[in-house]
Amino acid sequence: MRIIGIDPGLQRTGWGVIDARDNRLSFVAEGTITSSPKAALADRLMELHDGLVRVIELWKPEQAAVEETFVNKNPTSTLKLGQARGIALLVPARLGLAVGEYTPNMVKKSVVGAGHAAKEQVQMMVKTLLPGSGGGGPDAADALAVAICHAHLTETQSRINAAGGGR
Amino acid sequence: MRIIGIDPGLQRTGWGVIDARDNRLSFVAEGTITSSPKAALADRLMELHDGLVRVIELWKPEQAAVEETFVNKNPTSTLKLGQARGIALLVPARLGLAVGEYTPNMVKKSVVGAGHAAKEQVQMMVKTLLPGSGGGGPDAADALAVAICHAHLTETQSRINAAGGGR
Repeated sequence: MRIIGIDPGLQRTGWGVIDARDNRLSFVAEGTITSSPKAALADRLMELHDGLVRVIELWKPEQAAVEETFVNKNPTSTLKLGQARGIALLVPARLGLAVGEYTPNMVKKSVVGAGHAAKEQVQMMVKTLLPGSGGGGPDAADALAVAICHAHLTETQSRINAAGGGR
Repeated sequence: MRIIGIDPGLQRTGWGVIDARDNRLSFVAEGTITSSPKAALADRLMELHDGLVRVIELWKPEQAAVEETFVNKNPTSTLKLGQARGIALLVPARLGLAVGEYTPNMVKKSVVGAGHAAKEQVQMMVKTLLPGSGGGGPDAADALAVAICHAHLTETQSRINAAGGGR
């Protein structure tokens, strides 16, 4: 199963693609899509849209995992984030991928084992779990962490199903 | 010039299309795109996306005007609104329309003449300014108000330009 993780943001959206085969993960690609702060909002959202379409068409993931970001204290930032997040959810869904959403706590627990791990700990664990990754910057590392979380939870779910629905 | 106004929302997105010729406005069409509250967020955003694409392809507006909604006090609602708004800005931009954004105050001032008019006053003025409209519900009426605002401000701008940049 090939998974794309997405960490959405209007200025920078991180993405990371991994392969998950029988509980083993491997790194495929990572990067960041940026939008020009001086451009009109609609054009920035279009840059984000087109960037995500290109990445998905190039790497052909079958599933997508998007970070369900914590609500920011600043309402203007929350609105901006929401706009970027709308695109990050729309694009994989339109291209036919199943889309999962994970809170930062689920991601941290899945990658580091603790829900309140520091950002740096998460990024270090991503590098350890996915040899070859680490060249895409912090947003791409966060996106890879979301993809790892999706792979772990999907694997757990399929084991529960194989065991007869957990009975 | 044919204009589509959009009042975005995750549950209900209002839209209204008007024609503006030499300072005269006429009603073309209006409606509301809804998304199923029980569906996954990505699927709801896709319903909104596909609905807007259909409306724009059917009525062929040349410009779009989107309400720059006031930031809500509830951060969860703000994030939801942001997600819907991202789609409402993306779709017309991708289809090649120029996209304008207007605050609720600009819309009220343009339609009623006062920035703090009640919602009902705005809806009554929309009916008066656009005979034939009024059958699309409150969200469609708000969308028509945004389209009227865009028409008025574009008209004012082109008069200023015709007069030599306001000198």
